[in-house]
Amino acid sequence: MRIDIISVLPEMLESPLNCSILKRAQDKGLAEIHVHNLRDYTTNKHRKVDDYPFGGEAGMVMQIEPVDRAISALKAERDYDEVIFTSPDGEILTQPMANRMSLLDNIIILCGHYKGVDQRIREHLITKEISIGDYVLTGGELPAVIITDAIVRLIPGAIGDEQSALTDSFQDNLLAPPIYTRPAVYKGWEVPEILLSGHEAKIDAWRHEQAVERTRRLRPDLLK
Amino acid sequence: MRIDIISVLPEMLESPLNCSILKRAQDKGLAEIHVHNLRDYTTNKHRKVDDYPFGGEAGMVMQIEPVDRAISALKAERDYDEVIFTSPDGEILTQPMANRMSLLDNIIILCGHYKGVDQRIREHLITKEISIGDYVLTGGELPAVIITDAIVRLIPGAIGDEQSALTDSFQDNLLAPPIYTRPAVYKGWEVPEILLSGHEAKIDAWRHEQAVERTRRLRPDLLK
Repeated sequence: MRIDIISVLPEMLESPLNCSILKRAQDKGLAEIHVHNLRDYTTNKHRKVDDYPFGGEAGMVMQIEPVDRAISALKAERDYDEVIFTSPDGEILTQPMANRMSLLDNIIILCGHYKGVDQRIREHLITKEISIGDYVLTGGELPAVIITDAIVRLIPGAIGDEQSALTDSFQDNLLAPPIYTRPAVYKGWEVPEILLSGHEAKIDAWRHEQAVERTRRLRPDLLK
Repeated sequence: MRIDIISVLPEMLESPLNCSILKRAQDKGLAEIHVHNLRDYTTNKHRKVDDYPFGGEAGMVMQIEPVDRAISALKAERDYDEVIFTSPDGEILTQPMANRMSLLDNIIILCGHYKGVDQRIREHLITKEISIGDYVLTGGELPAVIITDAIVRLIPGAIGDEQSALTDSFQDNLLAPPIYTRPAVYKGWEVPEILLSGHEAKIDAWRHEQAVERTRRLRPDLLK
């Protein structure tokens, strides 16, 4: 899978894209992640990619021309399944959506910045708008990393222990049950006895009960 | 405001915490952000902070002892309003929650990693669990950055143009209206005439209509 990220702040993406599982997935050849500086696609001699909004309003707006040039340059090289824009208006990212996207071959993610992007970009160049949640952030860079992380970790081989990804929260519409590790007693706080019993079937049953109970209490909406 | 982030992957947090608005807020003295390596708080000679789960299961679990030592060391220095854990089980992050948190003085954010953390950490050391959305990520580092970004940009002075933050999506429970910038025509795609009219009151009315229409179409749940 190949992910091309277009941003005015490529330096913001550096450390998260080159750590941990995203680094390993790239080193193993499971994912190619390329970050493009939008300023490389402007014809403006000051490398400016934003301008004041029509109709007067606070904030600056990302212009269509450099974005169009950046996306066109990528599309000239290969076909893309989706051109994604990270926006609070978009479809909310969910685990099923991440599962589906992890099967795609090539995607572009455009990171919005400043006050937003010229609406014509969204109407004519973007195929899918995704929101990572109902809150406002400095820009689309962090959402682009979140989407990349959520997708790439699902590619077989990206996580060392595949069994572990299968038992994550949401994969069965249940929150994960509580987990414990050594020591069995810490400051008088004890691990539930059942987990020390060695009785596998009972432990499995307890875990399922706990997952259902936690989901019912904390996130009843997931059970609908 | 001071934010202390505890992580096993501090290098993952480097670039996003030192760019753009988060950098500016720190340079201006509006926010102090400190990242602590959990491994500095272990007594284990291999600096190990995880172990196998009791009851047998795939994945590793973050141990309570180093986490307790890290949090206790911070609490010995100052009072904290919240000790936050980023978890898919937590309360979903929203703009009103970010607004409220931007008024706090000192918070700790513990980033989960591996399969998760020993449940006793959550029961005894954490005061608030926050989820940034219903999807699974490599670890709690990206959610910690998201929470930090959502909060810090709201501190007065962090964003150059404060008016701009007020007109963001969600601050009035409406999605933002579309915005446009030069050129007025690009590849035959035109900016709505009203925005070029110079008629301020009509432009304001149009923007409000567009915001309501977009919210009704894309996110009717926000209008409830």
